[in-house]
Amino acid sequence: MRPVAVIGIGKTPFGAFGDRDLRSLAVEGGEKCLANGRHAPGQVDAFFLGNFAGPSFAGQNHLAPYVSTALGIHGVPATRVEAACASSGSAFFHAYNGVASGVYDSVLVVGVEKMTCQPTPRVTEILAGAGDCAGEIKAGSTFASLFAMIARRHMHQFGTTREHLAAVAVKNHANGALNPDAQMRKVITMEQAMNGKPIADPLNLYDCSLISDGAAAVLLAPAERAQEFTDKPVRVLGIAQASDFVALDQKPDITTFPAVRLASAKAYQMAGVGPADIQLAELHDCFTIAEIIAIEDLGFAARGEGGPFTLAGHTARTGSKPINTSGGLKSKGHPVGATGVAQICDLVLQMRCEAGARQVPRHSLALAQNLGGSGATCVVTILGTV
Amino acid sequence: MRPVAVIGIGKTPFGAFGDRDLRSLAVEGGEKCLANGRHAPGQVDAFFLGNFAGPSFAGQNHLAPYVSTALGIHGVPATRVEAACASSGSAFFHAYNGVASGVYDSVLVVGVEKMTCQPTPRVTEILAGAGDCAGEIKAGSTFASLFAMIARRHMHQFGTTREHLAAVAVKNHANGALNPDAQMRKVITMEQAMNGKPIADPLNLYDCSLISDGAAAVLLAPAERAQEFTDKPVRVLGIAQASDFVALDQKPDITTFPAVRLASAKAYQMAGVGPADIQLAELHDCFTIAEIIAIEDLGFAARGEGGPFTLAGHTARTGSKPINTSGGLKSKGHPVGATGVAQICDLVLQMRCEAGARQVPRHSLALAQNLGGSGATCVVTILGTV
Repeated sequence: MRPVAVIGIGKTPFGAFGDRDLRSLAVEGGEKCLANGRHAPGQVDAFFLGNFAGPSFAGQNHLAPYVSTALGIHGVPATRVEAACASSGSAFFHAYNGVASGVYDSVLVVGVEKMTCQPTPRVTEILAGAGDCAGEIKAGSTFASLFAMIARRHMHQFGTTREHLAAVAVKNHANGALNPDAQMRKVITMEQAMNGKPIADPLNLYDCSLISDGAAAVLLAPAERAQEFTDKPVRVLGIAQASDFVALDQKPDITTFPAVRLASAKAYQMAGVGPADIQLAELHDCFTIAEIIAIEDLGFAARGEGGPFTLAGHTARTGSKPINTSGGLKSKGHPVGATGVAQICDLVLQMRCEAGARQVPRHSLALAQNLGGSGATCVVTILGTV
Repeated sequence: MRPVAVIGIGKTPFGAFGDRDLRSLAVEGGEKCLANGRHAPGQVDAFFLGNFAGPSFAGQNHLAPYVSTALGIHGVPATRVEAACASSGSAFFHAYNGVASGVYDSVLVVGVEKMTCQPTPRVTEILAGAGDCAGEIKAGSTFASLFAMIARRHMHQFGTTREHLAAVAVKNHANGALNPDAQMRKVITMEQAMNGKPIADPLNLYDCSLISDGAAAVLLAPAERAQEFTDKPVRVLGIAQASDFVALDQKPDITTFPAVRLASAKAYQMAGVGPADIQLAELHDCFTIAEIIAIEDLGFAARGEGGPFTLAGHTARTGSKPINTSGGLKSKGHPVGATGVAQICDLVLQMRCEAGARQVPRHSLALAQNLGGSGATCVVTILGTV
């Protein structure tokens, strides 16, 4: 396996764009990325598309060649990967393996989702397809209610409080307010976050990520050739994808996600680093409790300490371990299939010192954690400027 | 890249199974395959699931860990690949690359589709998601009408006749009648095939593949270790995936599929063989015209000669180049996401001399061609017993 670098990134803004369809978003992200990585479409050896539910949201399936040909990429393997909210994290993982193993020299990965074309109840129903439709969903669960149960159990077991959850939302909104591509550029107060409209107790409106349209793209190449395409290559030092049960009722303990622990253990080992070495991270805060659990599962804090760690300010942009400087899924937005690749883009922006008002000073070793469903898929990626 | 072998196969019967859900079909195929390849679930390094439209047919998304955990496979990367009717062919392609490049030692690929849970008009609508929904489908096309246009143009350009199309159907039904796992085990006459109920002129009922439930699975390992798991390993000698435009109106010539030509050229080169060397094949006969065009695009016959080649009996079980001895999509059935892997299973059965009443005498070099949509994806695989 040879070293691999991210040589190009491209993103659309995230938001609700009534006048944009799925393909135009994916093409915008892809074209920006090709330009950023100094590539003509004909130089791409393989194309991966991360998308969760294009057929359900927009009626369009067979999405990989649909997007690749619109980008001017012809003939090469064009493959759609679906892994719920980890769809483009997984696409990135397979693209990485293709370059690392020498199968391809240049791979474009686009993540995309167009969600706002459906009314919210239908969006909730489509998202529920990432749960166990024959069990928990049939019984009436939505993803908000599944994560509400997770939050309630975490509170019961570790003393996590509403204030801890709210601290995640306040921090991510503060970061997103500085991100010109974020969907919700709005600072919120602790009081607002504590008193949002109830969604699924104990989660309120400010604990839930957004319904979004958007796309993100990255271009991968062998590290030894990276300088041909960018002045600021970022290396993929470690990466792993792991799986677990889909249904919450099959998990022995719902306050931890084994797939996150397994993927991060493998990625740390591969990169030769540990949690203490990571200088910044983009974590999958589909709900505030998910960021708290990720902090624990990744080893940034001990079990049960994710909430206090956040409330103490360690994960703030000015803290010792900045998390979701992009604003996270909470404020930047969560076009499901785009999220995994968008996390990589946001870390690369920081590592290139191109993150503008939200730039952090320590940024040479970063981690992205992309979660699918209630933990059945996880992809952890460790990036380095070394 | 190291040599790769198919060390296990498993299939469910194909048919309309009102009492079976998607997961139970996938698990049956997967379990049969693990047993056939002498593997415990814990020995599998990665899992790929080929599925076209589980979310639309059955409401269930995030299907890879949903199936893998039900098979007792835990922790490993579990990834769903979607490429329309080539979903599991593409999953097989990526699984092959994973083993060939040394990323994995043992990969299970399952293809599955559960289609009969929806009424036929809704099935037609879901299948149309593999076309261009903003163009040809919005204008009223179905896949039958798209392939009808292709057939009409082929007739106009090359003199292909209704009799040529019917000869494909008669042959595939004759083969399927000998396959205990086929959905439609029914011999039909030339007269029946010529006079079926009109579907989309010039295609009638007997020109169209079936709406089916079913699953198929294969297990891949490095060829050097194959003997540990099977007495009859089959080598993957060549494989390629290629892409093209989704919309028919973007193609300069609709009587040939560039993705089939490109994928087969690469696969032939990789295997060091040519069309004349192939002793039997499973081709993607979603419609009779598709088999005729595949015969031409793969180089088994000259352009425009696919029909006469078939009518002359060359592709019959007793002919020089038996095609679709399984019965093909026409008679065996076409659970979309299962088809690509099912083709591999059917060829392996022949190459192991386990094909029962439909066994052919020459079977050491075989080819599978799996098509997505109206040619936007194609995967060609060449297998050998050498």
